[in-house]
Amino acid sequence: MKSKTLTPLFDLEKMAGSNGHSGNGFTGMDILSVNQFSPDSLEYIFARAREMREMVARAGAADLLKGVVLACLFYEPSTRTSSSFIAAIERLGGSVIPITQGVQFSSVSKGETLADTVRTLEQYSDVIVLRHPEIGSAKLAADYASVPVINAGDGAGEHPTQALLDLFTIREELGSLNGLKVAMVGDLRYGRTVHSLTKLLLHYDVSLRFVSPEILRLPLTLMNEVIDAGIDVRETHDVADVIENADVLYVTRVQKERFNDLAQYEAVKEYYVITPELMEQAQEKMVVMHPLPRVGEIHYSVDKDPRAAYFRQVQNGMYVRMALLAAVLGRA
Amino acid sequence: MKSKTLTPLFDLEKMAGSNGHSGNGFTGMDILSVNQFSPDSLEYIFARAREMREMVARAGAADLLKGVVLACLFYEPSTRTSSSFIAAIERLGGSVIPITQGVQFSSVSKGETLADTVRTLEQYSDVIVLRHPEIGSAKLAADYASVPVINAGDGAGEHPTQALLDLFTIREELGSLNGLKVAMVGDLRYGRTVHSLTKLLLHYDVSLRFVSPEILRLPLTLMNEVIDAGIDVRETHDVADVIENADVLYVTRVQKERFNDLAQYEAVKEYYVITPELMEQAQEKMVVMHPLPRVGEIHYSVDKDPRAAYFRQVQNGMYVRMALLAAVLGRA
Amino acid sequence: MKSKTLTPLFDLEKMAGSNGHSGNGFTGMDILSVNQFSPDSLEYIFARAREMREMVARAGAADLLKGVVLACLFYEPSTRTSSSFIAAIERLGGSVIPITQGVQFSSVSKGETLADTVRTLEQYSDVIVLRHPEIGSAKLAADYASVPVINAGDGAGEHPTQALLDLFTIREELGSLNGLKVAMVGDLRYGRTVHSLTKLLLHYDVSLRFVSPEILRLPLTLMNEVIDAGIDVRETHDVADVIENADVLYVTRVQKERFNDLAQYEAVKEYYVITPELMEQAQEKMVVMHPLPRVGEIHYSVDKDPRAAYFRQVQNGMYVRMALLAAVLGRA
Repeated sequence: MKSKTLTPLFDLEKMAGSNGHSGNGFTGMDILSVNQFSPDSLEYIFARAREMREMVARAGAADLLKGVVLACLFYEPSTRTSSSFIAAIERLGGSVIPITQGVQFSSVSKGETLADTVRTLEQYSDVIVLRHPEIGSAKLAADYASVPVINAGDGAGEHPTQALLDLFTIREELGSLNGLKVAMVGDLRYGRTVHSLTKLLLHYDVSLRFVSPEILRLPLTLMNEVIDAGIDVRETHDVADVIENADVLYVTRVQKERFNDLAQYEAVKEYYVITPELMEQAQEKMVVMHPLPRVGEIHYSVDKDPRAAYFRQVQNGMYVRMALLAAVLGRA
Repeated sequence: MKSKTLTPLFDLEKMAGSNGHSGNGFTGMDILSVNQFSPDSLEYIFARAREMREMVARAGAADLLKGVVLACLFYEPSTRTSSSFIAAIERLGGSVIPITQGVQFSSVSKGETLADTVRTLEQYSDVIVLRHPEIGSAKLAADYASVPVINAGDGAGEHPTQALLDLFTIREELGSLNGLKVAMVGDLRYGRTVHSLTKLLLHYDVSLRFVSPEILRLPLTLMNEVIDAGIDVRETHDVADVIENADVLYVTRVQKERFNDLAQYEAVKEYYVITPELMEQAQEKMVVMHPLPRVGEIHYSVDKDPRAAYFRQVQNGMYVRMALLAAVLGRA
Repeated sequence: MKSKTLTPLFDLEKMAGSNGHSGNGFTGMDILSVNQFSPDSLEYIFARAREMREMVARAGAADLLKGVVLACLFYEPSTRTSSSFIAAIERLGGSVIPITQGVQFSSVSKGETLADTVRTLEQYSDVIVLRHPEIGSAKLAADYASVPVINAGDGAGEHPTQALLDLFTIREELGSLNGLKVAMVGDLRYGRTVHSLTKLLLHYDVSLRFVSPEILRLPLTLMNEVIDAGIDVRETHDVADVIENADVLYVTRVQKERFNDLAQYEAVKEYYVITPELMEQAQEKMVVMHPLPRVGEIHYSVDKDPRAAYFRQVQNGMYVRMALLAAVLGRA
């Protein structure tokens, strides 16, 4: 048979290409680092995230990203982050290619480079979310891909959407980002989320308190950045020193493995654990945050305290990611 | 830019929240055990399951659960059950976060508790389907989650949706649940599906025949429940004893591993195998069921016998799960 | 409550069953081998694939296969192929049950046969895409399944959708399939894609050049088929011999592991590598293709050459699979 005799499958005239939204400068952008964000663009994403929250509460999902396929490429598992992106695209009417397990067993194990994998996936998809154990991998992927790449964690590098959801949570919980006393607690040396959130907070009028064991203090370079920004900053070894005045307690885990001398770990570990007793000393409007998972550093009995914001923080991650996806795809 | 200048992404006024269905008491309910079901509520779910079957035959899918996200959290793989739930939510217009493999490599391996994992996933999703190797895990998850939890098997505990689909299959194949002679065959000691189906059948006017090796007889407690219910019941060692009168033959596997003495296994194994020769002795309207997978306990040559209902049973599982999902989400 | 008091969930009268397309003989067909395709049916699929490309460019996705559930059953991982099928069904409004990892840990490990797995999955789904390491497995699955089965690679057997996308790519890149000189390069002995594409090309007026190490020459049977078809054919050991006249260079990898004598591999390997220098000798309209992944056999510096068609080839795979899915489901 000849193709000219075919009845067309689609009425292409009727198929819409865009919703007329401009993306406000985000259209086509890769999201690789918190350094890409100004207070204005943060405010824009947060406003969109609030709309997402309202829409989800009202209807569960919308068709804003109908027709969009997201490639969710995770070279290391992260249930929380991949689930958040999957829910985000699905609640906007798009769909997902989940490559969240066993990437190592497939093309990659046959020796394919990340550049080739990314250029393959962009043939099928409209946006790529990448989790990779190596620093710089998201940048490399973005250099090769013609579709937007969102960095969902590149090893010791960045995890910008986590920092955005952390900042959004502070904003939503406390109504403002200015005039706050934020205490970061735990492993401040290796904690990627602490570093990224700190950088974002430098845009605002905040006081910072860094609470860690000596060997896990904030890296010198970042500390100097904070000082150069003219921020009111102090370091301490015990969360008890900051609990009374803090508006935000951002808790991370102090891992035993970081200590050469286990006796040293045993001696200090309790200084970084949030208990109901400690919470009694805190302000009534203080919020406790944690990037999760936690393993003992916040007691379970703290969970029912209304100031425990860590699960609301998880939910905010979905809204922020919905906003980012809509923005980089030019639909917000 | 200021957020007040934004053109809204969604027309929230137009977005529907509910279809006006009441859920008939199921709305928000966790599905943990067959003990939650009365004959009335079973009849309600079965009526909805029939509607699902008709809808799928007509259109493949509907939008009843559009906007719903199901978290499919499987700590141990079960392709059959997870595929059934995934198809169920998709055929109702909802979507899925599949966490069906390698959960052990992610947050969980970092030491996160089931309670935290569940409270994280409920931030993204509207209903959680949980498979977990430990008895009581579904109850624990439900205690922490604010969204409905459906138990898809908790080790030696329960697997209620399997029992519901088994009962629904008997009902659909034979037109009634009363007046039937049901024979359970195989491993009646450890067979979770046998225990749950037996409990549900106690609601009806049935006769029960239990066919097993001596060491795999029905647990004493359950046997006493059956007797206390005033049911006509007998135990036997050979399926040949029951084949002529049975309306239902519910077959499970007798695993070699259960026997300390392999000679004993060899001596009895053929008593629990369904062959075409055995089928010749059965009634014309009898049905053979099996929770699958099977490994030799039903000969492949039995498959073409119209009384072989085990693949129809699989399909019924999808309809029953569709009905349950719609019900607990308040849309049925 | 009685089921007769239920308000129906669905308006079944309004639910459409079909779009009126005939499927042109493909409806319900299994896609197992390239031998099933005539020039007419190839032209039909290619015309539909072009419509898919235009629709995706215009709208991203359509509702043509709304209500369709695809079971994507991969017994061995192949990110490229599974992602392509997943994107294909999603861009047509259908959904997917992804069983692309760890099948070996589930029912299958409990001893379930492929026949039973397939008959289980067809209870949930409308079409099954199967990747399996054993030759003949797709045929076996199709023998048991009542829904269409698409072979996505059965070991040393076939991978027909790859051959179709290869042929479609040649057609789209060069405007015709007749009058072309096609050179196949690399491992022609074990290369499944080379064998299938060669068979399809026998339908057309082409010249074939086979370029391989001595131990990796085209199998004798296939070579005889080519000769019997009256095709202009030659074999050679060096891609430099064919580069000047070729319209298509179809490159595959020469694996070190194929050689008993590594010195022999080292001596010949450079004859099968595509470099920018080699490309200078080629025609301006020649195209370089590769089934991917590649590992060194095409230099990365060739990628920016407009004649490098291998990533466009990947994209064509999605369109061809969309066309096949629509066709076997009777919607094209």
